Order: sequence, then C-alpha cells, then structure tokens
Amino acid sequence: MYQVEAQQVDNELFTEYAFSVDQLMELAGLSCAVAINKAYPLNKLTKSNGSVLVFCGPGNNGGDGLVCARHLKMFGYKPSIHYPRNPTKQLYKNLVIQCEKMDIPFLPDLTNETFNLSQSYDLFIDALFGFGFKPPVRLEFKSILQIMSTSQIPVISIDVPSGWNVEIGPLDNENNLKPDCLISLTAPKLCARFFQGRYHFLGGRFVPDALMKKYNLKLPTYPGHELCVLLNSSDDK
Amino acid sequence: MYQVEAQQVDNELFTEYAFSVDQLMELAGLSCAVAINKAYPLNKLTKSNGSVLVFCGPGNNGGDGLVCARHLKMFGYKPSIHYPRNPTKQLYKNLVIQCEKMDIPFLPDLTNETFNLSQSYDLFIDALFGFGFKPPVRLEFKSILQIMSTSQIPVISIDVPSGWNVEIGPLDNENNLKPDCLISLTAPKLCARFFQGRYHFLGGRFVPDALMKKYNLKLPTYPGHELCVLLNSSDDK
Repeated sequence: MYQVEAQQVDNELFTEYAFSVDQLMELAGLSCAVAINKAYPLNKLTKSNGSVLVFCGPGNNGGDGLVCARHLKMFGYKPSIHYPRNPTKQLYKNLVIQCEKMDIPFLPDLTNETFNLSQSYDLFIDALFGFGFKPPVRLEFKSILQIMSTSQIPVISIDVPSGWNVEIGPLDNENNLKPDCLISLTAPKLCARFFQGRYHFLGGRFVPDALMKKYNLKLPTYPGHELCVLLNSSDDK
Repeated sequence: MYQVEAQQVDNELFTEYAFSVDQLMELAGLSCAVAINKAYPLNKLTKSNGSVLVFCGPGNNGGDGLVCARHLKMFGYKPSIHYPRNPTKQLYKNLVIQCEKMDIPFLPDLTNETFNLSQSYDLFIDALFGFGFKPPVRLEFKSILQIMSTSQIPVISIDVPSGWNVEIGPLDNENNLKPDCLISLTAPKLCARFFQGRYHFLGGRFVPDALMKKYNLKLPTYPGHELCVLLNSSDDK
C-alpha cells in the first residue's frame, strides 16, 4: 500500500466509519502484542525473563507501542518504555497513565547505556515512526535508531521499520534498521518487500470489506478469531 | 463480585487508570466475539450459516453487544442487531454507524415475528442489561426477554443474564432467561453461580494486578495471549 493510500484508508475509518482513535489504536496495539507472543513466547525468552524495551515515537505509531506494552504486561512480559517526547494530546497522556499505573517503568535518556541495554532485554520494540513518516529522522530520535540498529537484540517493528521510507524502504545502506519481525497494520506498506527478518505478520483486523474493495486491497484471510496472521516466516524455510 | 464492587472497579478503571469507555468496550466486545467463536464455531452453525441476532439494551451492555456484532462480522458470521432505543450518546451513535457501514442489518420491532426468528437464526446474543441492572424490566424490553426465554435457539448472555438480579440471580421462576453460554466480563458477578448452561467464559482481560488485589478478586489465569478463558463447560462432564 502506498503512503497516500494508507493515509486515505486511515482517514476514512475515522470519518466515514466513525471509529475513534482510541478504538483502532487499542485493536492495533493488541494485535501487535499477540503477534509478539506468537513469535517470541515467554518461555523462549531466557536472557531476561521476557524483559522488553518499547521505543515510542511522538505520533500514532508510538501510541500503538504504548498499547502494545500494556497488553504485553497483561500477557506476563516485563515491558519498559522509552518515550522521549512528553505528549500533549490527552489520548497519549491517558495511555501513559494506564502504563504507569500498571507498573510499567518509563526509562529516561538511554544514549550512554547501550551496553547495559543489551544485557537487560530480550527484545526491542520499534514504535517510533509509522506510515506517516517523512525523512529525515530528527536528531532526538537518531540515537535511538542507532541503539536499535547496532544491537544484537531482535527488533520488532510496528507497521514500518523506523527510518525507512514508507514506499522505497531502506534509505541508508550502512545504518538501516534490520528488524527481526515486522507487524504490518491494516495492510502491508510498499517498503515491506525489503523486509528480510524472520517474521512478517499482518495485524489491525478492522478494515471493512467495502473499504478493502474500494482500495483494491488483497488481504490474506485471518483464520477464525485471530487478530493477526503470519504472512511469511523464515522458520518455514 | 457484588454489584457495588463491579461499579467501583468500573469507576476506578475510568478515573484512576484513565481508560476511555471506547477502549474498554472494544476489548470487552471483542472478547465476547472470541468466546462465541470458540463455543460456536461457524462450521457447526448449519441452520442459517452463522446468522446471529444481537439484542442490544440502552446502556453499556448494549454497547458491548454492538462491538461484539462488529467483530463477529469480521470473523465471518452474519450478525443482525435489534436495538430498540435510539441512542443519544455519541459513543453509541458511532458504534451504530460502524455496524451500519459494515452492512450489519438493524431490525425494527420483532414482537410479531417470534416464529420466523426461530427459523432464521443460529444464535441469540443477550446484550440487554449488565451489572448496573436494577429490576423491574421496563415494558419495552419485556417482549424481547420473552422471545429469548421461550425460543429454542441458544442464548449467549453478556456479563449478566438479562432480567436476573446481579447478585441473587433468577427472579421469576417461570420466565427466566436460561442462557446456554454466559460471558462474564472483568470478574463473574454473584449471579453466575446460578448459571446452568453449557459454557461459562471470563472475558475483559484488562484488570490491572493492583486493582485485582485491592478488590481481592481471585481471577483464573488467562493462557498466553488469550482474551477469554473457559471457566467451565458441561461438555467436559
């Protein structure tokens, strides 16, 4: 899906279909947590008993990350959150309160702790930028991207690997993020064809049939009541 | 859980934990749809290919029903909705638009169609009254309760079988609703001990640990990323 199509579909869901951001963000973030539990079940995360660090950006992708962190906590993981921007929107403020009240720690500046991070976490979740991203990456997020792209810890990207162009993919051959898992939301964006990690999921099961037809989206069939579907896995090879 | 406790827990989720009604209703209604898919998979609904009639009341229980209907549609069922009260709250209006735009029919007055209903549906979903219910049942809902309690179609009650007292259970020995399935939300209400149907689920997996401890709720463990858990099933016997 092209960037402009993703923006149009998103827009129609809110206007034509009268969804609230709260509703769709809740479903999107939940589907991410479910996908993560499928790909990285707790009993396989032996290094730190399921400690997960979620990097949340300033927009809706960061909101998905906050929701995902909360559901991971319900599933028994130990999420922590790095959220460098203080949110001004009430929705994001509420998502932060929900996490804080559920004893999910918010970590301050991380730039000098890269080594410790590698020891302390089983997974990184990249919820920095989504389908609305336009380069360049602002300075305050560059160091976070560097932490994720240089670490040996598996990175899970929500919707779009942060720093990539939504359509043409990786931008910088040296310092690109190489996520181990990509969770596309609503429909895969064009950049997903450059994904070379192990697990590619589709989540965000809320696109009405009429909207799929209008935008000619050929989405795979979700089985039964599943909230996400594995599109391909290198484990199959 | 007592009625007043259920109201206090609900209240704390919105105030202390800063959840929006949209968020929790989305999760509650989704967990109901998942439970229904587990108990009544589509391939076993042979009479009408998964046609389901959802009776929605004027409050939050009706809202859960609207959300549940929408997710059932995503799962491949054919839900219809009977929603006798025109909602005034924007939240409910939006939930109605979402369903209408997803081609879920809203049925007008049903009182003279009981026979046809029995031929046309595989399941009834009772989303009339929840934990806030205080008897007596108002006249406009009595006929709906009678349709559900006299039909041979399996009834699935969301949170509380409608017309029951939330704590002391069935009120009228002749015309009580006898649901085949009860989906308790957050925590079972006291009346659940009188449930004699086949499937009792718990859904609404969003109660933080601290709140469970505060109200001394002994909830079962949800497995993995499941949104509902089967508390007991007469199929086991």
